[in-house]
Amino acid sequence: MDARQTIALKRDGKRLTPAQWEAFIQAYTAGEVTDYQMSAFLMACFLRGLDRDETAALTQAMLDSGDRLELSHLGKPRIDKHSTGGVGDKVSLILAPLISCLGVAVPMMSGRGLGHTGGTLDKLEAIPGFRTRISLREAVAELEAIGCALIGQTEEIAPADKKMYALRDATATVEAIPLISASIMSKKLAEGLTGLVLDVKRGSGAFLPELDDELALAQMMVSLGADHGCPVVALLTAMDRPLGRACGNALETEEAIQALKGEGPPDVMAVTYALGAEMLLLAGAATDARDACRRMETAIGQGHAAEQFQRIIEAQGGNPAVVDDPALLPQANECEFYAAPRRGFVARVEPRAVGYGVTQLGGGRTRTADTVDPSVGFVITARPGDWVEAGEPLASVYARDARGIAAGRACLAEAIVIADGAEPPLPLISHRVSQAGVERYPSA
Amino acid sequence: MDARQTIALKRDGKRLTPAQWEAFIQAYTAGEVTDYQMSAFLMACFLRGLDRDETAALTQAMLDSGDRLELSHLGKPRIDKHSTGGVGDKVSLILAPLISCLGVAVPMMSGRGLGHTGGTLDKLEAIPGFRTRISLREAVAELEAIGCALIGQTEEIAPADKKMYALRDATATVEAIPLISASIMSKKLAEGLTGLVLDVKRGSGAFLPELDDELALAQMMVSLGADHGCPVVALLTAMDRPLGRACGNALETEEAIQALKGEGPPDVMAVTYALGAEMLLLAGAATDARDACRRMETAIGQGHAAEQFQRIIEAQGGNPAVVDDPALLPQANECEFYAAPRRGFVARVEPRAVGYGVTQLGGGRTRTADTVDPSVGFVITARPGDWVEAGEPLASVYARDARGIAAGRACLAEAIVIADGAEPPLPLISHRVSQAGVERYPSA
Repeated sequence: MDARQTIALKRDGKRLTPAQWEAFIQAYTAGEVTDYQMSAFLMACFLRGLDRDETAALTQAMLDSGDRLELSHLGKPRIDKHSTGGVGDKVSLILAPLISCLGVAVPMMSGRGLGHTGGTLDKLEAIPGFRTRISLREAVAELEAIGCALIGQTEEIAPADKKMYALRDATATVEAIPLISASIMSKKLAEGLTGLVLDVKRGSGAFLPELDDELALAQMMVSLGADHGCPVVALLTAMDRPLGRACGNALETEEAIQALKGEGPPDVMAVTYALGAEMLLLAGAATDARDACRRMETAIGQGHAAEQFQRIIEAQGGNPAVVDDPALLPQANECEFYAAPRRGFVARVEPRAVGYGVTQLGGGRTRTADTVDPSVGFVITARPGDWVEAGEPLASVYARDARGIAAGRACLAEAIVIADGAEPPLPLISHRVSQAGVERYPSA
Repeated sequence: MDARQTIALKRDGKRLTPAQWEAFIQAYTAGEVTDYQMSAFLMACFLRGLDRDETAALTQAMLDSGDRLELSHLGKPRIDKHSTGGVGDKVSLILAPLISCLGVAVPMMSGRGLGHTGGTLDKLEAIPGFRTRISLREAVAELEAIGCALIGQTEEIAPADKKMYALRDATATVEAIPLISASIMSKKLAEGLTGLVLDVKRGSGAFLPELDDELALAQMMVSLGADHGCPVVALLTAMDRPLGRACGNALETEEAIQALKGEGPPDVMAVTYALGAEMLLLAGAATDARDACRRMETAIGQGHAAEQFQRIIEAQGGNPAVVDDPALLPQANECEFYAAPRRGFVARVEPRAVGYGVTQLGGGRTRTADTVDPSVGFVITARPGDWVEAGEPLASVYARDARGIAAGRACLAEAIVIADGAEPPLPLISHRVSQAGVERYPSA
């Protein structure tokens, strides 16, 4: 195949046939199409767009580039939850044990933090000994034994997507609905799911800032799931401020552990229950939303969810004692309060500024090869709309040293905007998208 | 620098400042921006466009990425001629000796054939022993001694352009006016010229098929030359059919030698004299076009031009005896006539089909690493508009073996279209573009 012909077609705004998508992705996976040819192609895709059928063909081609989990022998529903990426979003760490202790298998393949967003794998690896690099064979064994496995994207799953995602990150071609949809769905469809719940982020901290784009993204992924007989439900949730209080790997893992004991911040608990209810309903493990919430509250209240997290940690080589004693998580050398520089309303808490702040403290990546310091980050107690007095503590900075503290303060000074008035923040959960269409949330 | 920010600016259709162009090209030359980042950027440039100032800044940045020839000590005008690329175009081989034997220095840096077009370097290398890989130091010595040097783009001249051109060829981002202009002009401005004549090709065999695009390309290059105090004149010439009869490296070199003796095909001689007159006028070496043509005719008629070609061949290690005896050039094993399959008008002789035909016979490249068989090709005597009878010879095929002959015949059957009527072909030379603007050619 001559890669140039395919690139030129997309460059000129033409539709590629499924066979052309398949051939191009296959040649790329085999190394016949080079990285520089693929990145020119991705920019052409970004600027010219893909229609629904092309997005489906790209998803199929990336799915076909690797293996799939075969889990039907588990004999129970298999539901995953995926977020499009945010700041302070530790909900996956809560839902995996919570839902898997309610008779639903959760094969969860997550990513690492990159750019301003955090990653579930980095948060899990804050737990001493926790291994996320496990093979598909090990993951299947863990699912058989305890109903859950928390893994990274292995070389076996959608390798074309893995290579393309790294290129997209380096070439400013991330924020395109067809490319995001195909990337997420090619991985999720490889997990052998019977249902998928998506948390599509809205607002200034989301990859796509416009509501129309977020709805289109959600609808595209619902539609791609339907193609493969995998029902998908998406909730649109607010990312105009961080979710919860903790931002930073060990700090977020600690907050997730609190949530598993019923003591998480209200917004974290609300998003967890909303997404968890959709998971249980897709699994047929609850009769309605009210029943689903009762089951989750019971699992948390009776300690089953926290015990299941201990089982998962143990199965993946980590120290399960962190669930009883979160002080066993890595601790930062320095911790200081950040106080309000003036009185007024908290007008904004900007997730991007907070996320990049965590990276600056050493808790995130600017390149994929960077190592991450799990101990650093922020705990931000101020919420948009709060009235604060000058000198009142708004947050804590956790850092390696005094220089980190100073850098963290500078980030918070930019991130937390205090003004004489405040607009209402986005609703925590605004829309529900399923094959039935788009509904306002909560639905009537 | 974060390459992604620059890529994202162009992706979103923003203008880059000269400092941003300089920084990005410098980082690419230094290897800090990767090939895959550059190719995404080039696709964004292709689709979003560059305005005149951006094209000038890119030209400057590519020029600054390498060395320049310092030739002012030669004490004479220094004029080069460059073509945007065609099929059968051997005019550079004629003009270099012809103009340099008339008191004008010709520092000529040429390229290789790629795609359907031929390259001057490949044609020169058909001469046994001829070396085109010579250093800038050697080129200067040759210019001092005999007033001409025919060289390839060395690593020293515009290295950023060299790397970018290879990427563009592989990623379907060649055919963009700003990128073509900046690529050509960054190299030509490094030659230390006092004037430049451009042959901008028109028609189906040109890289840009539309007249408006060709005029815009010519005007852009005239304007970029003016920025640097280098007057540029461009002629638009026909590439809706091959130029001359010979297509293929040794065959074209032989036709160029015939032309240096005054025996070239009429279209080759006409284009040679038109471009040569512009070179002599830019050099101040003729009072007007009529005077320029008289000087060239004399140089050819008295044998000075052919002798100068012998001097150049000798200086670059080749066998100068080929000028007296072109049979010393590599000869194909097989040669057969191609006859008209039916009676009718020659409606078209498609340059792309002919050019790709030469490549198929082994005389061109599909990858830069390919080696070229100089002996193969076509001599096409049929011209658009000719009336031909069935069985009348239209061309000869020169090939390695019977398989090559068959492939050549198939190419010609596609390239030479015989029909019941014929439209007039494009005028051989249609427009002249200079700082004074665009004129119809010949001007009144």
